Amino acid sequence: MGFADHESIEFSQDLRKLHDHIVDSTNLLIFIFLLILVILTIWLFKHKRFPYLHETGLAIIYGSLFGIIIRYGFTRTNKKSLNLVANLTLNDIRDLPEYVYLAISNNTQQKFVYGYKHPKRTNELATQDFEEKATFDPEIFFNLLLPPIIFHAGYSMKKKHFFKNFGAILIFAIIGTTISSFVTGGIMYACISVFRSMKDYFSFTDCLFFGAIISATDPVTVLAIFNDHKTNVNLHALVFGESVLNDAVSITLAQAIEKYSGATGFKNQFDLYQFFDCVYTLIGVFFASFAIGSAMGCFTALLTKFTYIRQHPSLETALFILMSYSTFLASEAAGFTGIISVLFNGIVQAHYTFNNLSKESQTNTKEVFNLLNFLSENFIFIYIGITVFTYRSHQWEISFILFSIIAILTARACNIYPLSFLINLSRSNENKIDLKMQHFLFFSGLRGAMAFALAIRNTSTQARRLILSTTLVLVILTVIICGGLTSKMIEWLNMSKPTNSVNVDEDELDDYDEEDSNDGKEKSRLKSFLRKFNIFKAWYSFDRKFMKPLLTDHVPALTDTMPKFLTPITKFLTTNEQFNSSNQYSFSKLDNSNYVNQLSSTNSIVNKFDNTELQLNHDPLLA
Amino acid sequence: MGFADHESIEFSQDLRKLHDHIVDSTNLLIFIFLLILVILTIWLFKHKRFPYLHETGLAIIYGSLFGIIIRYGFTRTNKKSLNLVANLTLNDIRDLPEYVYLAISNNTQQKFVYGYKHPKRTNELATQDFEEKATFDPEIFFNLLLPPIIFHAGYSMKKKHFFKNFGAILIFAIIGTTISSFVTGGIMYACISVFRSMKDYFSFTDCLFFGAIISATDPVTVLAIFNDHKTNVNLHALVFGESVLNDAVSITLAQAIEKYSGATGFKNQFDLYQFFDCVYTLIGVFFASFAIGSAMGCFTALLTKFTYIRQHPSLETALFILMSYSTFLASEAAGFTGIISVLFNGIVQAHYTFNNLSKESQTNTKEVFNLLNFLSENFIFIYIGITVFTYRSHQWEISFILFSIIAILTARACNIYPLSFLINLSRSNENKIDLKMQHFLFFSGLRGAMAFALAIRNTSTQARRLILSTTLVLVILTVIICGGLTSKMIEWLNMSKPTNSVNVDEDELDDYDEEDSNDGKEKSRLKSFLRKFNIFKAWYSFDRKFMKPLLTDHVPALTDTMPKFLTPITKFLTTNEQFNSSNQYSFSKLDNSNYVNQLSSTNSIVNKFDNTELQLNHDPLLA
Repeated sequence: MGFADHESIEFSQDLRKLHDHIVDSTNLLIFIFLLILVILTIWLFKHKRFPYLHETGLAIIYGSLFGIIIRYGFTRTNKKSLNLVANLTLNDIRDLPEYVYLAISNNTQQKFVYGYKHPKRTNELATQDFEEKATFDPEIFFNLLLPPIIFHAGYSMKKKHFFKNFGAILIFAIIGTTISSFVTGGIMYACISVFRSMKDYFSFTDCLFFGAIISATDPVTVLAIFNDHKTNVNLHALVFGESVLNDAVSITLAQAIEKYSGATGFKNQFDLYQFFDCVYTLIGVFFASFAIGSAMGCFTALLTKFTYIRQHPSLETALFILMSYSTFLASEAAGFTGIISVLFNGIVQAHYTFNNLSKESQTNTKEVFNLLNFLSENFIFIYIGITVFTYRSHQWEISFILFSIIAILTARACNIYPLSFLINLSRSNENKIDLKMQHFLFFSGLRGAMAFALAIRNTSTQARRLILSTTLVLVILTVIICGGLTSKMIEWLNMSKPTNSVNVDEDELDDYDEEDSNDGKEKSRLKSFLRKFNIFKAWYSFDRKFMKPLLTDHVPALTDTMPKFLTPITKFLTTNEQFNSSNQYSFSKLDNSNYVNQLSSTNSIVNKFDNTELQLNHDPLLA
Repeated sequence: MGFADHESIEFSQDLRKLHDHIVDSTNLLIFIFLLILVILTIWLFKHKRFPYLHETGLAIIYGSLFGIIIRYGFTRTNKKSLNLVANLTLNDIRDLPEYVYLAISNNTQQKFVYGYKHPKRTNELATQDFEEKATFDPEIFFNLLLPPIIFHAGYSMKKKHFFKNFGAILIFAIIGTTISSFVTGGIMYACISVFRSMKDYFSFTDCLFFGAIISATDPVTVLAIFNDHKTNVNLHALVFGESVLNDAVSITLAQAIEKYSGATGFKNQFDLYQFFDCVYTLIGVFFASFAIGSAMGCFTALLTKFTYIRQHPSLETALFILMSYSTFLASEAAGFTGIISVLFNGIVQAHYTFNNLSKESQTNTKEVFNLLNFLSENFIFIYIGITVFTYRSHQWEISFILFSIIAILTARACNIYPLSFLINLSRSNENKIDLKMQHFLFFSGLRGAMAFALAIRNTSTQARRLILSTTLVLVILTVIICGGLTSKMIEWLNMSKPTNSVNVDEDELDDYDEEDSNDGKEKSRLKSFLRKFNIFKAWYSFDRKFMKPLLTDHVPALTDTMPKFLTPITKFLTTNEQFNSSNQYSFSKLDNSNYVNQLSSTNSIVNKFDNTELQLNHDPLLA
């Protein structure tokens, strides 16, 4: 087939595309096949009650096996390439041409378009089709796979006992993660100071960057097994809450360090001005991301409260999912951190919007995000397994890996034990984080998807490649060792029985809401705890008196909680459902206001559909 | 920033990536925002009972508005590009270098990687960032957006009355679509023969290709409105069934014609050998795609029947979705047509696998595919609206568009009326497709997502660009005009009352299963209809005696339906649930076997969970 006519070039181009398409499909098919294998194996393990390997561990193992096959099972050929010199003088890479139109000497009429990709690295090696295709653009992790995982974590936060432990969780997440990052960074700097060969390409800021990304914990494996034992609810809330919020802290720290190292021109000298500039900007980015996420959450709550879209659950579910994903995109488009926005968006959606949804949408949104979370997570872990073998620029340094193991253990200890001591100072005796719980918190410091995604996002320098290779090892070691030992650990720490005398009441609603209730010690303890942290108390009161009545069909409504002179405005912001329930509320003045609220709002949804005024039938329990 | 060191190049590269990322995010954000707008507007229209605009019509309108903004609202700048001549002699495009490593004359150390994209077209115009980014790779439609739509169509096929009308549906889909393609092709050939300016670049095979892609109907708008009226179930089954199956026929024809025109070297002469070769290959591809889809469906059914994965509904749902998507990928990877595979996979999953799923998974899989279908469909229609304004190589020919409108009307008439006449010959009087129904079938020939996806897949030649532009016009015209007139049409045709005296029984199960029942005419009519088509009857019997007992927990089990000497094998393929229900079945020998099956299989799932032997409590209705 010659180059004579345009049509035959197009036909030839089609064949080329077809080949690419078949390679792409096969590659994705293998990933899906591995996911199916993971599912079937998990089922088998659950069926046979074999608790030593969790799905994420399995995903890594299957991924590695596939990685070995594509690494050693195919011969590699160099892709055809061509060296050309352009007669240009450039000062900045951004002035580079976007496209090169290449003409071939035997037919200069027809040109071929080449698009700019990236600067050439010195050690780019031969690859073959499969290997190249099995290497995803790291941005896929950040834009497609992580958002549903992080949103799901936030959306699952509406757990009893989570808000009770909110202070402790914040301390572990913010102060703890910062401690962990700097301790790890310091130990790694000691390492490169001892093994000086690394010092040529690994700076102190690289050490801190490594410290920040490796401080993001991911106890999914531990929690899955811990869940089956259903024992210590406070501990569960601590482990889960800390791991979710420390992702946000870890990503913020990593970005700050990256920005700092970029701004100082990669020199090994400390620049105070740049340092404070970065801290200032990054705190700004953190709060801006937080604000976008929360604002979009509140907007969704208002949208679902004041429209009757709940009458069409499919539309409502679609709206909810689109609003949540658009939060991520809006934050990224504005130059902030989408992952942080989506996390706080998830928390707000769970706290407010969820109450406005129809029963169907409540179930559907939960199921959809469960499913997306499951698929994304296992996809990432399969990819982690594959990357160990297919990534072509690994930078293995045994000494660095050994030091990093020591570093993460030390850093985790410096995080958990001193902070637990501090937290215990303000807690009553029955409510303390005891030593067993501290050991378990220490043990649950697995590394996972977030650390990997941060490490693979940028592998342009030798230092970054060393970080990626070491992170891979740490993720695999912690997931497989800690994951495998969880059941034993629960046994050893004798956690099968509750360690605290906590009133495990499945139907219990958000405790802090029931200020007027008087069912014993638990509440008064909570109160005394809250009294110590006035900021929390103020927030709870604000939430109950303003946010919940505004954003949901919560009772008492704004007309009851706000001063009378605001009535013209508050009336406008109160739905008929709230008015109905509110009258009922003032009439009965029951202690357990929250339960009435639940009941009456259910009834009022019935009202809405029937367009008739139903008499509220109270549960005899409440009479 | 100079080109001096590697680090600063990487930093500069990061800034470049950041810019791209922000443009990408903003672009996707706008799509999501338009989807949210569509949802809110649909809700408003439903709320205000305004039936003249369906969501797909809305999506097109919003898309167009956005298209106008990015077309006229931004100034266009040429992307920087560079012309280079390579000192190579090539005979085939596939020998082109994959990468060009470009060095810049003021720093020949550092090279930049450029990747091959496509042959340069003569009329490539200036674009700006947004416009370029808003133009997706057409493969996204085929690999991400169409599969869930088509699977959903197949998965929704388990509708009563669908199998009753199966013969008619097949005739409309296979014979009708072929007639429609050739009639359209012929009329368009007349058009280019009259307006000879087009004949230079538009061949007879292009006419046929256009005929094939434009014959794929998509009555989603009509059906949505028709559904609200819940009148003629047979007509619904006909419209829906035809539209689903004619996609498969249309895609097959289009591929055959494309292959033929490629093989004959784009000459305007008829090549009998190539013709038969293409027909032969494409029938092969059709059946291979069909076989992969059905086989994967049966495999999923076996997997869900013989494992107890239904005890873990989340795993089960994930497995089901992954198996379905892997069907698409497997078919594409093997070089067949994924869309066709996924369609038949959906039908098989609905017919067999669905019965094996837990209640939760039944709901969840339906909801998930509903959601995916809704989002994909509206995304495509928004994109259709945008493309009208942002596509830079439109080929508008008023005469071609006018002829094409006449062509699709004529072709639809040549499909519906003669074939209805033929079908009526074999139907009893009460069961005929009357003239009103024929008019409605004619009216429901909207063009939509499939026609657009086929048209945009390849726009390399001028002929193909003319096809794309014309298809866009036809899609928009039919969706907005027919969609808007549906309510009026139902009124005009007086369809608000059932035209056939059909027993509309919501709880009715697959009729053909109840061979022994004797509730009147309807069944005997069905029987007499089936008697005429022995192949259907044979299939129904085979399905009932072999496929259903093998692939689901259907009763009577294989041990009852197969010859006794096969018992060792059939016992192995029968679950405990089937044995239990089967004994019950032989004991009671009720007429309405299917209903017993439903009851007992529900009970046997309960058994499974309780691990106790429950006594089957029959519904008093059946006693």
